[in-house]
Amino acid sequence: MLALSPLAPARFPELPPIDGVRLAGGASGIRYQGRRDLMLALLDPGTTIAGVLTRSLTAGAPVEWCRAALKRGKARAIVVNSGNSNTFTGRAGRTVVEATAAAAAKLAGCPAREVFICSTGVIGEPPPGEKIIAALPSLAAAASATGWSDAAQAILTTDTFPKGATRQCAIDGVPVTINGFAKGSGMIAPDMATMLAFVATDAAIAPAALQALARLYVHTTFNAVTVDGDRSTNDTLLLFATGQAPAPRISRAGDARLADFRAKLEAVLLDLAQQLVRDGEGATKFVKVTVSGAASAASARKIARTICESPLVKTAFAGEDANWGRIVMAAGRADEPLNRERMSVKFGDLWAARDGRVAPDYSEAKMSAYMKGRELEVAVDVGVGRASAVMWTCDLTHGYISINGDYRS
Amino acid sequence: MLALSPLAPARFPELPPIDGVRLAGGASGIRYQGRRDLMLALLDPGTTIAGVLTRSLTAGAPVEWCRAALKRGKARAIVVNSGNSNTFTGRAGRTVVEATAAAAAKLAGCPAREVFICSTGVIGEPPPGEKIIAALPSLAAAASATGWSDAAQAILTTDTFPKGATRQCAIDGVPVTINGFAKGSGMIAPDMATMLAFVATDAAIAPAALQALARLYVHTTFNAVTVDGDRSTNDTLLLFATGQAPAPRISRAGDARLADFRAKLEAVLLDLAQQLVRDGEGATKFVKVTVSGAASAASARKIARTICESPLVKTAFAGEDANWGRIVMAAGRADEPLNRERMSVKFGDLWAARDGRVAPDYSEAKMSAYMKGRELEVAVDVGVGRASAVMWTCDLTHGYISINGDYRS
Repeated sequence: MLALSPLAPARFPELPPIDGVRLAGGASGIRYQGRRDLMLALLDPGTTIAGVLTRSLTAGAPVEWCRAALKRGKARAIVVNSGNSNTFTGRAGRTVVEATAAAAAKLAGCPAREVFICSTGVIGEPPPGEKIIAALPSLAAAASATGWSDAAQAILTTDTFPKGATRQCAIDGVPVTINGFAKGSGMIAPDMATMLAFVATDAAIAPAALQALARLYVHTTFNAVTVDGDRSTNDTLLLFATGQAPAPRISRAGDARLADFRAKLEAVLLDLAQQLVRDGEGATKFVKVTVSGAASAASARKIARTICESPLVKTAFAGEDANWGRIVMAAGRADEPLNRERMSVKFGDLWAARDGRVAPDYSEAKMSAYMKGRELEVAVDVGVGRASAVMWTCDLTHGYISINGDYRS
Repeated sequence: MLALSPLAPARFPELPPIDGVRLAGGASGIRYQGRRDLMLALLDPGTTIAGVLTRSLTAGAPVEWCRAALKRGKARAIVVNSGNSNTFTGRAGRTVVEATAAAAAKLAGCPAREVFICSTGVIGEPPPGEKIIAALPSLAAAASATGWSDAAQAILTTDTFPKGATRQCAIDGVPVTINGFAKGSGMIAPDMATMLAFVATDAAIAPAALQALARLYVHTTFNAVTVDGDRSTNDTLLLFATGQAPAPRISRAGDARLADFRAKLEAVLLDLAQQLVRDGEGATKFVKVTVSGAASAASARKIARTICESPLVKTAFAGEDANWGRIVMAAGRADEPLNRERMSVKFGDLWAARDGRVAPDYSEAKMSAYMKGRELEVAVDVGVGRASAVMWTCDLTHGYISINGDYRS
């Protein structure tokens, strides 16, 4: 068991029940005896679902299953296992997904295509279908409206804490709830979605509208965090709406009555995404990087990502070294427009560089004091335009090497 | 002082004299007292020069100077300092480059534009122009035909050994020599050139032909190695020909009489490039990655680079863990065509995966034994075409974190 991340929140939040959702987490012995590794969510009839999945070309069998199932927009059950990602497992992997969906469908009383399957863990090992299927009936019996924390525990791998978030909002004056939980700690550089994240609401929202919201907000939340630049084969965000709150049924993502819901949904997604970074493998610093003055939003994002994924920038954070020159280096290799002579770099409120060279009032002592903080902010202006982007990352420490030098063995 | 890399060659090679080249390395006190940090090469009249420079948009002042000077194709002196990269230094940086070139030109008896300047070290600190200029006369006095090793020492930063290579070849039956030396250990992901590399020959080759050869071979040598994916602001390869061997003067890169020279030149460049990887910060494994079955050469290179720069792949090498699933993950996130169901992964002669899943004869014991070697070979076939690429990298260890967590402080 890994030591708790120093960036962990004080506690797992209190996730209130959401009408139409029951969950359970349990141990099926996939990789370690007695460790929770399987979660089941049962959803009442009428639940709509949307999702965003990894763009990886070596995606796992469960991802392909979800991609097909999402087309129907309806969900009655979600099965998630940790300890084995069922990826690069050939025909055996597909067979296990189909058998798991059939078993869960029988328990939920629905077609197999309304069951969603996610897996996370080692790549390329035979998928533990029998263990999963054998454990499902007891999970179905145990599923309850208060099972959020157990469910969030059961999907973890190298995570050091379970990740949850909740917000209340109103649709047309009717209160609704948004709950979410996620896992992820390494292999985190979501580019179309994240490792695994599940967000539920009792609002009534049509699948197409839900899907539009998922695609929209993933850019500013999960796609805006990175731990190590390694995009997973199994990144999955599933967003489901039971429709059991007495709020009006919404069919368009742009509906004015959704304004509050949209803001709170983005907040839940961002909260979860930032918790992935706070549990980044070996992380000791939580770093916000803002790039402004860029030629376009895409250009700003690419520069921010290059900075956030530079090993030299990340080791400097680990060493509490205000080595702003490495930020200049990383921005310079992003292959995006920048004007070196107008470029500036700021740490918190302290200017490091302005107009293409060290800032006149640069103070090594003040900078070093700032770098000792747990939460750091870096702002880079590249001096060519008006577009900007924000991205969050963590430092690269000995802990990351230790965790990943012997994760599988 | 860092401990010698376990991947270091047994010794610095014996670099024979090249008529028309004299070198010296000395200590000018730029960053550490008594450490060699300045090198001067004096070149006889008639020497041609070619070069390839970083594509970084935050390139240093010396890079811009070289870019302009290369247009003339003639060189009489090269000045290289370590300890300060003279990058992101604004007008002061340009002034120092101009003054250094003027001082060296006076010593060499040539126009300033025939002096080439390179700098490596910390980014963003005021350039030490006075120290460099004060030390030049004694270096000019000391320069000798046997100064190769001293010169190679003077350009190092976090390197743990000086890097040299030499080959003999014949042009139209006349023997000529190619000598080279280089530095680089971190911030190594050359994309148009490398950190700093200098290659000399006594052959007589016109600047345009020399430039064509530099551009051609940089792809299979310096651009085919990576330590950490961080491309430097000062990558520079300079290639110069004194023309003092009694071989015919060659004006076209494709001249049939250059066949042997071309092969040996590529060998020298590859030898130096591989030494950069062998001195990769914290490296304990030297890894060759071959990608075949790709849709195009560019696609194969991108997949190979993504594998070579994946922190999870590199930490698995460090942990001697045959975690081939991470190679599958990295290939899948390269955004290049691949057929998962036809993909294969091999370590040395051992199949890890074939046809989209674990190989039938996979043996964890044999694989683990293979991974204990210092030199590893990974071959990935992505099953869509006939193009291939080779790239060399090293592992990511605690040593990299230690070196870069407190390099500047």
